[in-house]
Amino acid sequence: MCGYISKKSLLPLSLLAIFVIFMPSQAQSGIISDATEACLDCHISITPGIVGDWQKSRHSQVSMNEAIAKSDLEKRVSSSDLPEEERGFVIGCAECHMINNETHTDSFDHNDYTIHTVVSPPDCATCHAVEWDEYQKNIMSKAYSNLMDNSLYIDLVNSINGVQHFSDNAITADIADDTTNASACLACHGTKVTVDGFFERETELGEMTFPVLNGWPNQGVGRINPDSSIGSCTSCHPRHQFSIETARKPATCAQCHKGPDVPAYKVYQASKHGNIYESEKHHWEFNAVPWTVGQDFTAPTCAVCHISLLVDEEETVIAKRTHQMNDRLDKRLFGLIYAHPHPIDANTSIIKNKAGLPLPTELTGGSVSEFLIDEAEQGIRLENIKSVCRSCHSSGWVNGHFVMLDKTIETTNEMTLTATKLMSQIWEEGYVEGLPQGKSVFDDAIEKKWVEQWLFYANTVRFSAAMAGADYGVFANGRWQMSKNLREIHDWLETHRQLKK
Amino acid sequence: MCGYISKKSLLPLSLLAIFVIFMPSQAQSGIISDATEACLDCHISITPGIVGDWQKSRHSQVSMNEAIAKSDLEKRVSSSDLPEEERGFVIGCAECHMINNETHTDSFDHNDYTIHTVVSPPDCATCHAVEWDEYQKNIMSKAYSNLMDNSLYIDLVNSINGVQHFSDNAITADIADDTTNASACLACHGTKVTVDGFFERETELGEMTFPVLNGWPNQGVGRINPDSSIGSCTSCHPRHQFSIETARKPATCAQCHKGPDVPAYKVYQASKHGNIYESEKHHWEFNAVPWTVGQDFTAPTCAVCHISLLVDEEETVIAKRTHQMNDRLDKRLFGLIYAHPHPIDANTSIIKNKAGLPLPTELTGGSVSEFLIDEAEQGIRLENIKSVCRSCHSSGWVNGHFVMLDKTIETTNEMTLTATKLMSQIWEEGYVEGLPQGKSVFDDAIEKKWVEQWLFYANTVRFSAAMAGADYGVFANGRWQMSKNLREIHDWLETHRQLKK
Amino acid sequence: MCGYISKKSLLPLSLLAIFVIFMPSQAQSGIISDATEACLDCHISITPGIVGDWQKSRHSQVSMNEAIAKSDLEKRVSSSDLPEEERGFVIGCAECHMINNETHTDSFDHNDYTIHTVVSPPDCATCHAVEWDEYQKNIMSKAYSNLMDNSLYIDLVNSINGVQHFSDNAITADIADDTTNASACLACHGTKVTVDGFFERETELGEMTFPVLNGWPNQGVGRINPDSSIGSCTSCHPRHQFSIETARKPATCAQCHKGPDVPAYKVYQASKHGNIYESEKHHWEFNAVPWTVGQDFTAPTCAVCHISLLVDEEETVIAKRTHQMNDRLDKRLFGLIYAHPHPIDANTSIIKNKAGLPLPTELTGGSVSEFLIDEAEQGIRLENIKSVCRSCHSSGWVNGHFVMLDKTIETTNEMTLTATKLMSQIWEEGYVEGLPQGKSVFDDAIEKKWVEQWLFYANTVRFSAAMAGADYGVFANGRWQMSKNLREIHDWLETHRQLKK
Repeated sequence: MCGYISKKSLLPLSLLAIFVIFMPSQAQSGIISDATEACLDCHISITPGIVGDWQKSRHSQVSMNEAIAKSDLEKRVSSSDLPEEERGFVIGCAECHMINNETHTDSFDHNDYTIHTVVSPPDCATCHAVEWDEYQKNIMSKAYSNLMDNSLYIDLVNSINGVQHFSDNAITADIADDTTNASACLACHGTKVTVDGFFERETELGEMTFPVLNGWPNQGVGRINPDSSIGSCTSCHPRHQFSIETARKPATCAQCHKGPDVPAYKVYQASKHGNIYESEKHHWEFNAVPWTVGQDFTAPTCAVCHISLLVDEEETVIAKRTHQMNDRLDKRLFGLIYAHPHPIDANTSIIKNKAGLPLPTELTGGSVSEFLIDEAEQGIRLENIKSVCRSCHSSGWVNGHFVMLDKTIETTNEMTLTATKLMSQIWEEGYVEGLPQGKSVFDDAIEKKWVEQWLFYANTVRFSAAMAGADYGVFANGRWQMSKNLREIHDWLETHRQLKK
Repeated sequence: MCGYISKKSLLPLSLLAIFVIFMPSQAQSGIISDATEACLDCHISITPGIVGDWQKSRHSQVSMNEAIAKSDLEKRVSSSDLPEEERGFVIGCAECHMINNETHTDSFDHNDYTIHTVVSPPDCATCHAVEWDEYQKNIMSKAYSNLMDNSLYIDLVNSINGVQHFSDNAITADIADDTTNASACLACHGTKVTVDGFFERETELGEMTFPVLNGWPNQGVGRINPDSSIGSCTSCHPRHQFSIETARKPATCAQCHKGPDVPAYKVYQASKHGNIYESEKHHWEFNAVPWTVGQDFTAPTCAVCHISLLVDEEETVIAKRTHQMNDRLDKRLFGLIYAHPHPIDANTSIIKNKAGLPLPTELTGGSVSEFLIDEAEQGIRLENIKSVCRSCHSSGWVNGHFVMLDKTIETTNEMTLTATKLMSQIWEEGYVEGLPQGKSVFDDAIEKKWVEQWLFYANTVRFSAAMAGADYGVFANGRWQMSKNLREIHDWLETHRQLKK
Repeated sequence: MCGYISKKSLLPLSLLAIFVIFMPSQAQSGIISDATEACLDCHISITPGIVGDWQKSRHSQVSMNEAIAKSDLEKRVSSSDLPEEERGFVIGCAECHMINNETHTDSFDHNDYTIHTVVSPPDCATCHAVEWDEYQKNIMSKAYSNLMDNSLYIDLVNSINGVQHFSDNAITADIADDTTNASACLACHGTKVTVDGFFERETELGEMTFPVLNGWPNQGVGRINPDSSIGSCTSCHPRHQFSIETARKPATCAQCHKGPDVPAYKVYQASKHGNIYESEKHHWEFNAVPWTVGQDFTAPTCAVCHISLLVDEEETVIAKRTHQMNDRLDKRLFGLIYAHPHPIDANTSIIKNKAGLPLPTELTGGSVSEFLIDEAEQGIRLENIKSVCRSCHSSGWVNGHFVMLDKTIETTNEMTLTATKLMSQIWEEGYVEGLPQGKSVFDDAIEKKWVEQWLFYANTVRFSAAMAGADYGVFANGRWQMSKNLREIHDWLETHRQLKK
């Protein structure tokens, strides 16, 4: 009988195989705090989905003590002063929703516990302090104010989200309302979440009090939280599993980087990297920290190039983890209205160009250099991203790639300038009112065509060059549309000249 | 040696692991009927693909007796009067293609068996009667006649599918032919499958007779079958595996709910739910019945919100299974031409508005309430879907979400009204002929722009709000296009006024 | 104790389960050559990504001797005269980068080895000779010259990629530069990779010499290599794993067959086949050779229909492997400017129509038959693809499908003709200059609308019919856009006639 496995023993073994494959690999040794137990007692039946989600998480299984015992490269926590009294516990409901209550205007009494609904980055920073520090230098953390505190962009927002009416043969437009903005631009940029008092509600467990939250729900990257902090870790680390696998997969970034204005995800999908990811990802290891190039994955995801801690198989560091992200970005491809060196400060609403417009470039071309990083800093950041490329590609390959990107930036900027000259001519000849007349540059049909030149087509072509996503450089909102759009603007101008005659 | 597994024993064990993971978990104990054996004998080499597909199915492995022995929650069959004589057999070729032959005009003699090609919902209803009952109350079951028996929509179909010609400086258009309609609109809506006699053909097995089927192949949701029934279960449960995993995955719904008119799938993909699904689905269990929230999956697919039987881990039912689907839908987002309360009857071709148009809304705004569910019923259905939301989200979260959806319906309806006022003005001033002239409202270029306002952009924005798919609310056929399109219609009107002068 | 597996023994067993599932199943018995060992010594730390990728490959694990010992159906190598002295080694760095050096102008001395950077199809043909023979008859192998040696297409390329300027109230356009072309059209079509001398660079290992490559990096299907050969196997078999799983998955084809001009991948995704693939693929076997219909997969990918060796479960061959691909294609759906029978020769730049244009069709409709396969050959190729269809579908189903495709070709060709008649009228009346004036037919806004009629919409509708991807036949760049575009061209003509008056 020895060395033979009876039929009876096969079932447990195969179940084990499933367990090993489908469960996170960490040991399950942490203790659940009493407060978290109290939450779970009710919420297992009230919100079983998020409880089940959390049960699959590393948070539910690893105590702070275990987390900080890891080697430097393996460590997923970065704070040096973890609260002593909580170190034996796993990270449960209470550990996040009951921390820093005093700073949260949404804190309220809930079954004899004071809790807050909106967990904010400073709450997460209890354990992940370095990430929070870095993230505040990330332009994304200011996504709310960079949009809503910029007079030009607010005009753009209103021209998109404001309801339009037709009467007396004219179109008029309302100022965009807060709810619409929340459902539109601010879904990605983040809302301002405020507490508008508290209300009582009958529940299965009797009458209970809850805060009235405005701008909620929202998971935008620049959300203004009830504790006045900015950002929302759940944008990329969705509740309540907070899976590093999810954050490392491109579908996460795709939530906001997929549309025609910033089609990074679509370009990635059409690229060789995206091809390999899509075809081979089920063979990869997405939960390993550190993340080993060539072993854990064989083509980059967004996180590989822009965020993750990467090592080779001898654990030599290829790239440090960063939540500043622009650490590895020398330029901002996203043309406003031309591509330009990356801004120095995450707060871009302070930028003004020579013409007095809150833009990092002049409408007539050229960058507003005082607000943008200099060549030396650009060189450092370019080297950061290139060192990731070189873990798979030769220097010649990498340099050849960036030659194409640089040329693309040059030509798309030129095509934007041509469209802008046409637009200026149209304003000058008075067919529509815009900059020279002190009127909106976004409200007329022809102005919207001009916006698409830089916001959709030039951007798409640049992203395509940056990530080698072929057709986005040509027929998929690429050079075809860029060249066609320009001819159509000219055609419009010629038609209106003839009409005038 | 005991307790030690020799190297020799490793291989069978690991193969078992693969087996357990890649095979459906049910036991393989049912008996194949003689008639099905006869089919398989030839078809294993004639159509090996579908035979192999069926072999992987639950149908090939579980007998009716086993199926009905399951507990109520686990049951996948719903008929109370399963045919006694067949209960010991698995569900094979014969059990579906040889049932109800007398009602099928496509029945024919095939190697001494009478069979029919087109398996229809009443055939499936032998075991799945409740699903078939429900499905007939689903608006999708009438997708053929709701389109083809509506004089306005037929005009739309012809304006899209009819071949156009240019001669004598005018465009003329043919009536759309049946084959083109089948390849276009009816690919989703379903064709009318009719039997046009029978023909003989030389086969590897000698001369054989087959029916001549018109409108075939087709898998549309409202297909009219040769037994006069409506619908096609294979739309979502594709042959011959009929996998519940497939039906529960969003790629199934995407077959028809992806285009610019109804971009539900694209919005889902860009949403947080879609992000989690895409990143974590390989850890989920798609074959479990009932389907346990938080355990089997941690974010909803289309089926979770709209169809599936959901329980929590204590097997408390969160939502009942329904194939009526609008059970959980209070409104119809799909604006015809405005979003409105859900129709009472699955047959919408009976609807007439005050102006005499076969539409559930007036062109000038407002719903045709006599054909639509009332507020009480809306409240019940809204509560049904909200109870699914609340298995993961707090009431405050859920209500906040629906506030944004309601506002979006209001504003997109308003933007549709503005476009319609412009269109009416254009008709009135006679630049093109339409409603006032008793002519098609879909054939002119400017009319097509008006259609896109409600059919593409307003719908996209609403779906985006309904499922929180950010960019589809803004730049991806969203509010940007909605506001731009309106300005372009106005621009066209102004140009034509100037031309007239 | 016997028959019982102790807790201690579970871990190795479960690790084994992971190993078996995530690692290729072949034995690892080949020997690494000394030259490859020398490469690996440094590159394991210089480019760990590609070394790791290669380590997961079949190339790194199977020697030539093992590869040629396989049965005919299982064989992945096709050359009859494999180099005797290398047969004991696995295929490593040296085996590809050091072969045929004398034909490569990019060969250079690298640490005392002569190597070349760009591995070309003739290098791969050392083992895969038949595939290389076939590929040269594939129209894709001539993708560079078919585009760049065709005067009409070059004009199209320039109209898309050339930078445009606005001065003196006119638009002027530059000739497209090589770098932009490389980043745009030639990303898919392939660049001409040339050696522009050699340069020295300081590296971690001292000063080293490298070739200066123009048109590099590039992975286009028709790349002209430094050894004058055409093609790039890595287009579909990406370095350095060369996984057959990747090549068989549709994301690979999607790199170039996804845009609005040739949306094959998007149509597939929306089709029933794509639905099943997306939902069930993780249960399939993508590494099996031969590939068994119904067992290894239950719905086709691109490779199934167009390339792969397919067998049934008795190993009867359903379709032979081909890298000529048009072996199974009777028509070219991609309308230039109408769909037509497949070209005889892979080199299409030799084609001239009666009007003297380098096109396989006349602008006025009809095919240039002398350069296209005849009806007999069309019949053979159609039967090839139909025999793949019939492994899952009945003859009636298959024929019904092709009736819809044929009708779609007829109607889309007709809709292209109508647009072309309109365009000709516009040229004739002189609103823009084109063919009659001996000027570019691609540079004006209205000409670009005409191009979209055949390049985007007619093509999309045809692909939709060919693969039953519903909405691409209607609202997703389908018949809706085709009919709207035509009306808009007519509207433009009418407006300009009125302006002229």
